[in-house]
Amino acid sequence: MARNVEILCIGTELLLGQIVNTNAAWLAAECARLGMAHYYQTVVGDNPERIKAALAIARQRSGIVVTTGGLGPTADDLTHAVLAEFFGVPLVSHPEVLVQIEALFKERGRRMSPTNAKQALLPEGATVLANPTGTAPGILWQPELGLTVLTFPGIPAEMKVMWTQTAVPYLRSLGWGGEIFFSRILRHWGISESGLAERVGPYLALENPTVAPYASQGEVQLRITARASDSETAGHLIEPVERELRAIAGEDYFGADGDSLASVVGAHLARRKQTLAVAESCTGGLLSGMITAVPGSSRYFTGGVTAYGNGPKQTLLGVSEDLLVTWGAVSAAVAEAMATGVRALFDSDWGLAATGIAGPDGGTELKPVGLVYIALAGPEGIESREYRFGSRRERESVRALSASTALDLLRRRVSR
Amino acid sequence: MARNVEILCIGTELLLGQIVNTNAAWLAAECARLGMAHYYQTVVGDNPERIKAALAIARQRSGIVVTTGGLGPTADDLTHAVLAEFFGVPLVSHPEVLVQIEALFKERGRRMSPTNAKQALLPEGATVLANPTGTAPGILWQPELGLTVLTFPGIPAEMKVMWTQTAVPYLRSLGWGGEIFFSRILRHWGISESGLAERVGPYLALENPTVAPYASQGEVQLRITARASDSETAGHLIEPVERELRAIAGEDYFGADGDSLASVVGAHLARRKQTLAVAESCTGGLLSGMITAVPGSSRYFTGGVTAYGNGPKQTLLGVSEDLLVTWGAVSAAVAEAMATGVRALFDSDWGLAATGIAGPDGGTELKPVGLVYIALAGPEGIESREYRFGSRRERESVRALSASTALDLLRRRVSR
Repeated sequence: MARNVEILCIGTELLLGQIVNTNAAWLAAECARLGMAHYYQTVVGDNPERIKAALAIARQRSGIVVTTGGLGPTADDLTHAVLAEFFGVPLVSHPEVLVQIEALFKERGRRMSPTNAKQALLPEGATVLANPTGTAPGILWQPELGLTVLTFPGIPAEMKVMWTQTAVPYLRSLGWGGEIFFSRILRHWGISESGLAERVGPYLALENPTVAPYASQGEVQLRITARASDSETAGHLIEPVERELRAIAGEDYFGADGDSLASVVGAHLARRKQTLAVAESCTGGLLSGMITAVPGSSRYFTGGVTAYGNGPKQTLLGVSEDLLVTWGAVSAAVAEAMATGVRALFDSDWGLAATGIAGPDGGTELKPVGLVYIALAGPEGIESREYRFGSRRERESVRALSASTALDLLRRRVSR
Repeated sequence: MARNVEILCIGTELLLGQIVNTNAAWLAAECARLGMAHYYQTVVGDNPERIKAALAIARQRSGIVVTTGGLGPTADDLTHAVLAEFFGVPLVSHPEVLVQIEALFKERGRRMSPTNAKQALLPEGATVLANPTGTAPGILWQPELGLTVLTFPGIPAEMKVMWTQTAVPYLRSLGWGGEIFFSRILRHWGISESGLAERVGPYLALENPTVAPYASQGEVQLRITARASDSETAGHLIEPVERELRAIAGEDYFGADGDSLASVVGAHLARRKQTLAVAESCTGGLLSGMITAVPGSSRYFTGGVTAYGNGPKQTLLGVSEDLLVTWGAVSAAVAEAMATGVRALFDSDWGLAATGIAGPDGGTELKPVGLVYIALAGPEGIESREYRFGSRRERESVRALSASTALDLLRRRVSR
């Protein structure tokens, strides 16, 4: 049996460029992790003839075909019907799937529409691949010797849960994942990709594990990837390299793998039994949103205020009119007053504040778009910093960088 | 000559899932804009045999093959060499390209490395497709009757400039872009994809324009796509269908194209000269973040409070201890008190509040994960609703649905 997998993404919206195919990248990384050779990806639209043409090619060159998309309830969702036709079997209704779909609608307080019944029709002989978070189940099917087909919905969140909970255990049971890639991602903030690459230069030439830099939205990652027969061996390959890279990166390293600036700050605060409150102007809730994205954040996060205009800055946070008139709302003085004010308002150990000009309008020559002040009030006093994220950045980019940079400032104080 | 285009992306990093294939989506949208039928996308690694296998398939089913990737100076950049071999012609050095590469290095204060000379080797008979912002040129080539090959580098910024400045004028000169696809996206909230599809059933069978449903994170879209010689004609095709679809969808329709729930709510508030404040528990800043993502939101958004624990709910929002003890923090009564409290605190026309259980912990049998109460206090009184988003949803999904649903509740009140 050919041990290579082909990813076949089905959806006209992909061919029109209306969405980016993040599913293919995610599945590709998963296949790499399982050590499954993956040589081809194909994208076709919601068109029966072209889906069949792609299947005809895939069956010749691949042992496993993983499809995404086309499992929904509407007329242009064709994947299972076309698969059945292509391999010459009828569609069969699965009552147990229908029951699950009905239950899901009921739990959400809605009535199942008749078209959803279509989602219980699967090719004869195919095994149901349960979809724990949506209505569309997939299938796990060997329509002919040497070929396995797995189907997933196109909605990324549903696809990922199905892959992890049902497909991976099955694939492992078939012996996939013999030699496996293991990756460890080291995360850094406050240093550029080229700056970090220079500091760790010689490591980038290693062969097993490999080390590769990657930058995204201000965060710089080093990905250490080892190829080994099992996770323990991979761990032995990765561990010394990780230790050395972390020593080189120093305080710019903040966490690994699933860590985020917010989760790391949260862990430090929980360890110190300290609390945090935030006052936001330009970030407008993003900072609070990042912090509360971490489960259990209620242990250390008391709350936040989005003070968008000058009114709430004065009445809620106690920023004096004097400061606002003398320095303007976007200033170090006002950021410090906001941090002090929110710390008092929520009776917290730390108060973190951001005020700036996110754009696209509102910039001046003296205070251009991208100018942001971040202040931190804590048990040992108050500090503030000025950042210039650049006037050509988009609004959401300035806001996200501001929120992450604020978290990083706090991280460097509480990590000690 | 077949008038359909195939996008062939070359790069092992795509097959390892290390980067997302944004190039394919961007090129696909461009092809749609030019009216070029685009039925297939293929991804292969930096492997000569598999690149050739993909070319063999593409030449049979497509009239134009657009490749990305594999034009760099290093050993794994193979595109032009493999193309030459596949079509049986030698590689030829282009001195004028070499001069340009040397000049570019000089301008950046660096010396050209000998490996860059490879980038001046192109298949015999191919036309140079200039790369204004990088070292790697592409080609424009008709290696055989009925087949045109265009190659682009994998770096998105370089690829886009080349496409726009050199490929599009050439394609237009060949008569492409005569007929163009125009799309309009109608956005809905508060109805399921299947429910909407049933209501607009007959429209899904139209041929020009076509109508296709699409669902993502609670939002349901109808995409109307017209094929026409110019945007005016397309507009005439789309307009009556849009009018009828909007009449059918009624209040579940909230906006088109680049609209979001937050931008639509903002436009209504600005028109009414009304202001909004938000009180967030389970959404933890997300709602405020969505509202402030809209440029100019300071005109109508006074601010918000993230009241994560019971303390701030009492002290800041004036929720009585009585309510918290009797009904619990996740209750209609507390949601209403939060909405009323934040409306008073920020002296706003509207106060919007959300409290619920985002998970993964904290759920009980009576109050499971996914249970959310949303309340709206306004000039005409107060209302609240209970939602059950399902206990198997992920934390971020519950939070995002809660924030969007809150915006939708307000939208239905202010859109009148």
